Amino acid sequence: MASTRVEKVLYRVPNDSSKKNAADPIALPPGTSSEDFKEYIKKAVEIVGEENVTVINNKDELTKEHYTDPSKAHDMFHVFDKDYFVASAVIAPRKVSEVQAIMKLCNEYGIPVWPFSVGRNVGYGGSAPRVPGSIGLDMGRNMNKVIEVNESGAYALVEPGVTYADLYAYLVEKKLDQKLWIDTPDLGGGSVLGNAIERGVGYTPYGDHFMMHCGMEVVLPSGELLRTGMGAMPDPTQPHVEGGTLDQQPGNKCWQLFNYGFGPYNDGIFTQSNLGVVTKMGIWLMVNPGGYQPYLITFPKDSDLPKVVDIIRELRLAMVLQNVPSIRHVLLDAAVLGTKASYSSSDKPLTDEEIDAIAKKLNLGRWNFYGALYGPKPIQDVMWQVVKQTFGSIEGAKFFLPEDVPDKNAVLHIRAKTLQGIPTFDELKWVDWLPNGAHLFFSPISKISGEDATLQYSITKKRVIEAGFDFIATFTIGMREMHHIVCLVFNRNDAGQKERVHKLIRQLIDDCAAHGWGEYRTHLALMDQIAETYNFNDNAQMKLNEKIKNALDPNGILAPGKNGVWPATYNKQAWRLTAESSLSR
Amino acid sequence: MASTRVEKVLYRVPNDSSKKNAADPIALPPGTSSEDFKEYIKKAVEIVGEENVTVINNKDELTKEHYTDPSKAHDMFHVFDKDYFVASAVIAPRKVSEVQAIMKLCNEYGIPVWPFSVGRNVGYGGSAPRVPGSIGLDMGRNMNKVIEVNESGAYALVEPGVTYADLYAYLVEKKLDQKLWIDTPDLGGGSVLGNAIERGVGYTPYGDHFMMHCGMEVVLPSGELLRTGMGAMPDPTQPHVEGGTLDQQPGNKCWQLFNYGFGPYNDGIFTQSNLGVVTKMGIWLMVNPGGYQPYLITFPKDSDLPKVVDIIRELRLAMVLQNVPSIRHVLLDAAVLGTKASYSSSDKPLTDEEIDAIAKKLNLGRWNFYGALYGPKPIQDVMWQVVKQTFGSIEGAKFFLPEDVPDKNAVLHIRAKTLQGIPTFDELKWVDWLPNGAHLFFSPISKISGEDATLQYSITKKRVIEAGFDFIATFTIGMREMHHIVCLVFNRNDAGQKERVHKLIRQLIDDCAAHGWGEYRTHLALMDQIAETYNFNDNAQMKLNEKIKNALDPNGILAPGKNGVWPATYNKQAWRLTAESSLSR
Repeated sequence: MASTRVEKVLYRVPNDSSKKNAADPIALPPGTSSEDFKEYIKKAVEIVGEENVTVINNKDELTKEHYTDPSKAHDMFHVFDKDYFVASAVIAPRKVSEVQAIMKLCNEYGIPVWPFSVGRNVGYGGSAPRVPGSIGLDMGRNMNKVIEVNESGAYALVEPGVTYADLYAYLVEKKLDQKLWIDTPDLGGGSVLGNAIERGVGYTPYGDHFMMHCGMEVVLPSGELLRTGMGAMPDPTQPHVEGGTLDQQPGNKCWQLFNYGFGPYNDGIFTQSNLGVVTKMGIWLMVNPGGYQPYLITFPKDSDLPKVVDIIRELRLAMVLQNVPSIRHVLLDAAVLGTKASYSSSDKPLTDEEIDAIAKKLNLGRWNFYGALYGPKPIQDVMWQVVKQTFGSIEGAKFFLPEDVPDKNAVLHIRAKTLQGIPTFDELKWVDWLPNGAHLFFSPISKISGEDATLQYSITKKRVIEAGFDFIATFTIGMREMHHIVCLVFNRNDAGQKERVHKLIRQLIDDCAAHGWGEYRTHLALMDQIAETYNFNDNAQMKLNEKIKNALDPNGILAPGKNGVWPATYNKQAWRLTAESSLSR
Repeated sequence: MASTRVEKVLYRVPNDSSKKNAADPIALPPGTSSEDFKEYIKKAVEIVGEENVTVINNKDELTKEHYTDPSKAHDMFHVFDKDYFVASAVIAPRKVSEVQAIMKLCNEYGIPVWPFSVGRNVGYGGSAPRVPGSIGLDMGRNMNKVIEVNESGAYALVEPGVTYADLYAYLVEKKLDQKLWIDTPDLGGGSVLGNAIERGVGYTPYGDHFMMHCGMEVVLPSGELLRTGMGAMPDPTQPHVEGGTLDQQPGNKCWQLFNYGFGPYNDGIFTQSNLGVVTKMGIWLMVNPGGYQPYLITFPKDSDLPKVVDIIRELRLAMVLQNVPSIRHVLLDAAVLGTKASYSSSDKPLTDEEIDAIAKKLNLGRWNFYGALYGPKPIQDVMWQVVKQTFGSIEGAKFFLPEDVPDKNAVLHIRAKTLQGIPTFDELKWVDWLPNGAHLFFSPISKISGEDATLQYSITKKRVIEAGFDFIATFTIGMREMHHIVCLVFNRNDAGQKERVHKLIRQLIDDCAAHGWGEYRTHLALMDQIAETYNFNDNAQMKLNEKIKNALDPNGILAPGKNGVWPATYNKQAWRLTAESSLSR
């Protein structure tokens, strides 16, 4: 039975809306009949309970009010029609054994399943699946426990639904927040686990979330359960949970202390991938460094960027900059504080003069560097002296501590929290820069070099402005590279803007590839295009990824197309999207 | 043709020595006839040249003089007969395309191939293969170039044959050693690349070598060439090498700056694995921190261990200990400075009284902590104050700087180099503790906890002494765990000692597994036993490893049995070794 179903999904079968039954979802899984779908849903209900299965059959419900509601798994910031990237149903397992059962059920019916944690992933597709009609596997609704915070080991073990805000609240409740810090990205509403396996970053010294994870529990596409690293070793010294299933048993006491275990280190293949559903993950917590001082340095001129970046590289490599600081274009800060309309009546990209005026009004520079010092006061003093001296060599640089900035809404006050791992929810305000604001992230990696940064900035800015948008961006500084995060804000109710922004980002990908710059992460619509730029030696890396994919997921049920990796049961070319794809229903 | 050969290797076929031809190697590849082997060697010579193929057919050459000569790929510290773990021939490719050609040739003949870099890996099997008669692939003899040291990016790109000493000498020659530091393990003769992919450690803040690697070039078992991370993206801005093959082209400018690239992050599966031959690897270099001060703290009593370790944990987590320091048992230092006979005429394990006397003579404690401060003087002062105050709370603790220790052979003077990444060759002197000294490393992972350390110490020490050996060990302190490195020194010309040490290490593995402790790395003879202790959920991790192995290496030619991962073409049970295995020729 399964094999005929699998054959059917070799090519995408668009739904024929004239044949749509009232009970059918907006998008059926590819190659799946109404009857089979109904049967599948019935069996899914038997596994997870009726209250944890939602068929998505009402287009009108895909509204702004629902845009952060994972039970409506779709793309909140849609560049195609809002009902293109949409799940057929959302299933929210209550425990690991149910995740395993759903995987087996999907194999039986050849139905694709797209896991998400809490459904954020803003700018990259939200909770929507790459293949319309996939099952949205909501790992967060019921599986949202902080399983453990270990004080002496300074780590947490979390389920997929635990957000940064949840984990922080947990530490506060247990009175551990003065000793242990979390690391949060700009927004506190995302999943700690989900962000790490998408290789997101935060801003403290623990900002590289994948580097700072330790140990995973994974359900493979076959439904098999696995623990990685030291978790693969049973630990008779740990308390046994009577009557508990295997996944409910405590892991090895070193599971969250040592990543590598013995033999091949597999965790990386479960990141940005479709090889497994991560059901538990350890994350290291930073011990309070004994002192903390956030600061802002503003640089007045657009042309200051290369000087700033070259200084950043030297200081970052020397560990004088101890964390993941960021250098932000003034319009990003401006957009957090107000809409475009609040600054200007222009409907064109703002001019240099207008941007200067905004910077002046906000007492910011054209580029604004948000950093922090960590450690006891004498250590901070040494660092600060170097920071002031080096950045101070740039004409017009101004230094601010939070007490120097009276406006309590100012970005420095937000960053003062973020850079010590206190989750906030204020940053995404910049998406309201335009009415019905939505955004795409364009995120190329760059060397920390003034020359590279300037070139990347000028190329992307030129295209953004040509497309009629404002250039809004930030560089976040990693160990030896920068994530250049260009925020492409558009009005999602404006078909013309949607078309322009879509063409723009495809152009940016090509432009940057021509300079050897690749993106670290992207929106569903662009995964294939970006994967194709990583094509050294006739796509050798993709061939490896596909070999592993087909070995672990022969029916191709888990997140087909994720980051460009298609299983053999899908015709990759038929699923390829372009800016010209007709994707309305 | 290939398929029948592959069938033959389904079971190990021990050589029948009565049928041995004069030209045959000591060990033929399993299931391979003399004729096929000769044919294979002829073709290999055509690929790499005669001077780069050595058939190993003279047992007498496996002597101490050759024990670090990779052209005699065998186990320098053999616990079985010295000619058990031995290659049939050593092949040393001159370039990547030859590595690819050799992989294809091995597939054609179904002959296993065991890559090594420079053939160190002491205590874990040296350059010897797991399957006797494998081809030893000497990646280091000809492929030993520092391809690049990038000053502004603070990284090196190296070939497999580059040793720590080579890389350091390169920095000195280019006058970069004052700006950029390498991180070296105890001995400077090992391969930078080989150590990182075996997940070895050093002692500076960059001590986790896999964490600090960035970007790989890999030849897959099929012979396909791959670059990982950003290396998968071609970079038109990099200079093209006219007439150069693909592997001779410069990589993406971010290849050594950003590990993850786009999509699944694959590097980990090429560590401690048999999934690919790593031909190039990037490694991050540490920027001179602007100050450095090594120190030694001695603790007088055996029972000081838990107090010391609990302090270490707190300071390490708080980053007051900035590096990978170590706490060493006095006999390790004693063995570096002299043979057992130079201290005692006893042929039994030394008693507590004898050990105390040695400590007194050497002006050391029973436990000796080697650490360092990194950074400008004011930062060091803050750290040092905390270090002195906390460790000073332990009665009898004594603090030493190098200038306090007149004996220039003292371990502190060696560590003063090692902890700033200057390679040395003195540490392995401890292997001469016994005549004809050899050693096995037993390396369980432990929580950084006084209780765990004490328990692990007492369990392992008891067994070591019962077996008639001296307990010689060190704990190296990682981010949140310790590698407990127990050095089992034995006389390799003493059959009784060899049998005892072999039984001992197998007992230690079982003892530690019963406490939930697993080893991070091991000798060839013990790979299966340790892999079997990582058996959560009916060996789910091993099943995953095997699935990937069989997908990438269907003929099972690359390093079968490495870390317990056997391809489907081998009968795992038939290859299993025990202390009772009869392994003489």
